[in-house]
Amino acid sequence: MIRRTFQVAMSLGSHRVLPGAPCVLPRLNPTSAFGSSTDSLVSRFCPEKMDMKDYALPNASWCPDMLNLYQEFLEKTKTDGWIKLPSFKSNRDHIQGLKLPFGLAVASDKNDWRICTRCIQEEGQGYEYVIFFHPSEKKSICLFQPGPYLEGAPGFAHGGSLAAMMDEVFSKTAYLAGEGLFTLSLNIRFKNLIPVGSLAVLNVDVEKIEDQKLYISCIAQSRDQQRVYAKCSGVFLQLQLEEESSQ
Amino acid sequence: MIRRTFQVAMSLGSHRVLPGAPCVLPRLNPTSAFGSSTDSLVSRFCPEKMDMKDYALPNASWCPDMLNLYQEFLEKTKTDGWIKLPSFKSNRDHIQGLKLPFGLAVASDKNDWRICTRCIQEEGQGYEYVIFFHPSEKKSICLFQPGPYLEGAPGFAHGGSLAAMMDEVFSKTAYLAGEGLFTLSLNIRFKNLIPVGSLAVLNVDVEKIEDQKLYISCIAQSRDQQRVYAKCSGVFLQLQLEEESSQ
Repeated sequence: MIRRTFQVAMSLGSHRVLPGAPCVLPRLNPTSAFGSSTDSLVSRFCPEKMDMKDYALPNASWCPDMLNLYQEFLEKTKTDGWIKLPSFKSNRDHIQGLKLPFGLAVASDKNDWRICTRCIQEEGQGYEYVIFFHPSEKKSICLFQPGPYLEGAPGFAHGGSLAAMMDEVFSKTAYLAGEGLFTLSLNIRFKNLIPVGSLAVLNVDVEKIEDQKLYISCIAQSRDQQRVYAKCSGVFLQLQLEEESSQ
Repeated sequence: MIRRTFQVAMSLGSHRVLPGAPCVLPRLNPTSAFGSSTDSLVSRFCPEKMDMKDYALPNASWCPDMLNLYQEFLEKTKTDGWIKLPSFKSNRDHIQGLKLPFGLAVASDKNDWRICTRCIQEEGQGYEYVIFFHPSEKKSICLFQPGPYLEGAPGFAHGGSLAAMMDEVFSKTAYLAGEGLFTLSLNIRFKNLIPVGSLAVLNVDVEKIEDQKLYISCIAQSRDQQRVYAKCSGVFLQLQLEEESSQ
């Protein structure tokens, strides 16, 4: 069931039916699909009253560059339309009351789920990051400080950890900007290594939304923009989450 | 210093000098560069006497598919030229006595370093994987079972965790097949979601080695090959590690 439904979704994404997949398009209702405004997506995503821990808050491990830029963008949330996104332990907490479409679900007896980029809970050891989103301009800034548990070459962040961070900030941006739900592709070009414990600033833009796909780009660089760490582009498939109570 | 040297390396990779980078090529000695045979690389990488924990050994969290296929490939190490790669907590343990070229180093008071894909030490919660490498055919198989701390959409592995896993198996393959040291690019197309706790088999091939670059491809799929999870290609830059004692 999982295979069939997701392959259908994916085949929609690639505009061709995968071998072995049934030639059935998802039953999207064009009057309701992607009808959610960015404002309503953001307000559901950023509840005013939060009883869950927000991991995107400063802690003692943040380097001065990260703290300073965080404060700078926090000021911009008051004047320039930026929103600081909360970051919970699992995506399940972000989409409470909603579920994946097409019956995409996995039966499991597990109960401690964590989003990949919050897998390490010790402060400063793993992914320290915060995302600011600008709804009307459909762009994001992510402040990312990789810790020593994300090493690749000695002393430097693993390319895979930056790839994961990019996919995560793309995912949040794609969802809030236009219900982008699944990554279809990621294309990353690495330019320089990120020293562990230093700040990388990811500037993310939604380039266009077309044919149920969001096209997103990103440049990751040092705060002074003198060192480019990587450039990335990604494509996301638009799909609506469903209300838990719906059939 | 870090910036200058790595940008030089990277500009070599892209065959053009980045803005702001000096127009100096790395001082490679053509008679010694990439002179290490795959056999010598493998034998240094896989020490017979290991006093470090090998994380690529079966544990109680491995699903039956992963255990069975592990046993199958372990048999092939006796007859078909496959080698099971050990997996230590940090790349520092894999390259003892060697260091990055061009003085690439980071001063730090940290001492608990972990490679990104071994960041979670609780069995079954994060990246469970083992890599088998075939020296003469320059290919690898990685058995990967994502745990609940690698979640993206509820119940499924985060695309970023698969990207990180792919970059890691590419890195090991690139290094052993031809001293591929740095990822220049990754290009991933996602086809289906991987349910948390299930097995993904990554088939990795070195397509060609040309102009100091290794071109690598991968298909990640279910054990029965009926479900493709993702396809990936990557390019790595060949650079020799240096002996610690060398100047």
